[in-house]
Amino acid sequence: MKLEIQSPFDMHLHLRDGEILRDVVNYTSSQFCGAVVMPNLNPPITSVKLALEYKTRILNSSKYDFSPFVSLYLTEELDKEELQKAKDNGLFMLKLYPKGATTGSENGVKEILSDKVLEILEVAENLGFILSIHGETNGFVLDREFEFLPIFESLAKTFPKLKIIFEHLSDRRSIELVERYDNLYATLTLHHMLLSLDDVLGGMLNPHYFCKPILKTPKDKETLLNIALNAHDKFSFGSDSAPHLISKKECNNGAAGIFSAPILLPKLAEVFEKHDSLENLEKFVSLNATKIYNLNRSNRKITLIKQELKVSKIYNDIVPLFAGDSMSWSLEQ
Amino acid sequence: MKLEIQSPFDMHLHLRDGEILRDVVNYTSSQFCGAVVMPNLNPPITSVKLALEYKTRILNSSKYDFSPFVSLYLTEELDKEELQKAKDNGLFMLKLYPKGATTGSENGVKEILSDKVLEILEVAENLGFILSIHGETNGFVLDREFEFLPIFESLAKTFPKLKIIFEHLSDRRSIELVERYDNLYATLTLHHMLLSLDDVLGGMLNPHYFCKPILKTPKDKETLLNIALNAHDKFSFGSDSAPHLISKKECNNGAAGIFSAPILLPKLAEVFEKHDSLENLEKFVSLNATKIYNLNRSNRKITLIKQELKVSKIYNDIVPLFAGDSMSWSLEQ
Repeated sequence: MKLEIQSPFDMHLHLRDGEILRDVVNYTSSQFCGAVVMPNLNPPITSVKLALEYKTRILNSSKYDFSPFVSLYLTEELDKEELQKAKDNGLFMLKLYPKGATTGSENGVKEILSDKVLEILEVAENLGFILSIHGETNGFVLDREFEFLPIFESLAKTFPKLKIIFEHLSDRRSIELVERYDNLYATLTLHHMLLSLDDVLGGMLNPHYFCKPILKTPKDKETLLNIALNAHDKFSFGSDSAPHLISKKECNNGAAGIFSAPILLPKLAEVFEKHDSLENLEKFVSLNATKIYNLNRSNRKITLIKQELKVSKIYNDIVPLFAGDSMSWSLEQ
Repeated sequence: MKLEIQSPFDMHLHLRDGEILRDVVNYTSSQFCGAVVMPNLNPPITSVKLALEYKTRILNSSKYDFSPFVSLYLTEELDKEELQKAKDNGLFMLKLYPKGATTGSENGVKEILSDKVLEILEVAENLGFILSIHGETNGFVLDREFEFLPIFESLAKTFPKLKIIFEHLSDRRSIELVERYDNLYATLTLHHMLLSLDDVLGGMLNPHYFCKPILKTPKDKETLLNIALNAHDKFSFGSDSAPHLISKKECNNGAAGIFSAPILLPKLAEVFEKHDSLENLEKFVSLNATKIYNLNRSNRKITLIKQELKVSKIYNDIVPLFAGDSMSWSLEQ
């Protein structure tokens, strides 16, 4: 049995840089035709020049036909000229991190609804950017996303023509807001629809499943899974795959992020098949993104075959999601 | 400034065995006159013979005058004769683990309200044992204690003369039940009254603060702290200090448990002083235990002095609670 998916996109991806970039990019580019690439590197991608150079390094590292949509890191130093230049050079994603919310958010925005940030967002709206947000406050870890909802709502109302993406939505209490505003959309990760906090610390502690936003309750994961299985129009797939070396995970002060890139489409196919929803998979991983982000679909088709995939326990010193498990679908080589 | 505490007790303690026992016992016996010692060793302390031998090893390792109240591990194999023998030999604590609830609970009870277990508890009630319970189900990690409440209630009703200890109470929703039944009591740990889940995974991942029951919300910790500061009659102090070597913590499949033994009384003094409650400290760490467990107070007094204590980052290859912090009280040497 074969399954062909035309032009799948991963709308939220961390590729890092240098050796790690070269190690991981092909796990994604072998499965996806394009991906929104996050800018929280060290140093962060805060200018058009840095973004374009980074894009070149990604393209040079990929063995497959692949479009990296590099996001520009939204800092308070961003101005109209730089945004215009970004637009002229084909960049269309802006990423907003609240300062301190996650890995590499040190350069993020301290006060989101400040005059300076609102000014930048007004320019972004007029130029047709898409705004991608890590929506969490600094409150209690399980309520951070919920507490952020009023900020999302305020931005949605203030900039009705600005498309705003609620990244890695993890809390079922957020869904209603996304549905209520025409200009709000969201991405869903594989791990937030299949795992809960129990998988991090319900048994022994699993640092490889520690991520931000933190995995939530079993009820949250079930609700998100259903959104995906139904390929809800306002949600596209964004893995938030984030490679961290074992030494940065199995330690004190472990880094947040789950490395899911090697197994994404095989696992999605398995899960959608199990729930009799295979017919919705292409909508979830391709068509929704095409519409929400105004993308051209590639003619490239990814073929999966019904053949056991044994997930390695480790890829390039990184422990992946579902390490050591078997899945029922594989990529056709 | 000095503070004298007569006969403090730690009513929930893990001392392990062999080299680790010898390494850690004096952190406790220098600060406490007695402690309830948990039996979840490998092999577990499931017989009177094992309990008495363990007690001897503890006494031989301690440099201070110290009474270890060794708990007997409640398994379905325990019978009337063994319980009578335990009683005759001065053992009075029974510890019940639901199978799989925490470290070393593999030998625990599968079905708590089964005929066999109820039979053992009836004998225990008649012989005047105190039953100590790790009260968690196998449900969602943050609701496990809450879900266990009906079992506590059922036991409290079925055995009205059996004193039952709700160990390391961590969820504020449990307090009302303890107050409602004359034969229900609880222990409180230092970490559950000072830390929340944010301290484990709100920032980077801290495996040394991973424990069972898992740390809860800021509201839970505040509520528990207030119970302690008021030295609520039904609660005694039980640290649940649990030493795990760094190699078992900073790894995949990390062990649950927080090692707090080296800093308990200094930190308690600091916290009680900060909240103008120093006059309640002796009640919380000594008198309440004396009453609840029918203990004789020792004449030994522990003296704390108002002098900075710099907590080491590591003790015998174990990272302690508040590693590297300073506290305002020290033990008098």
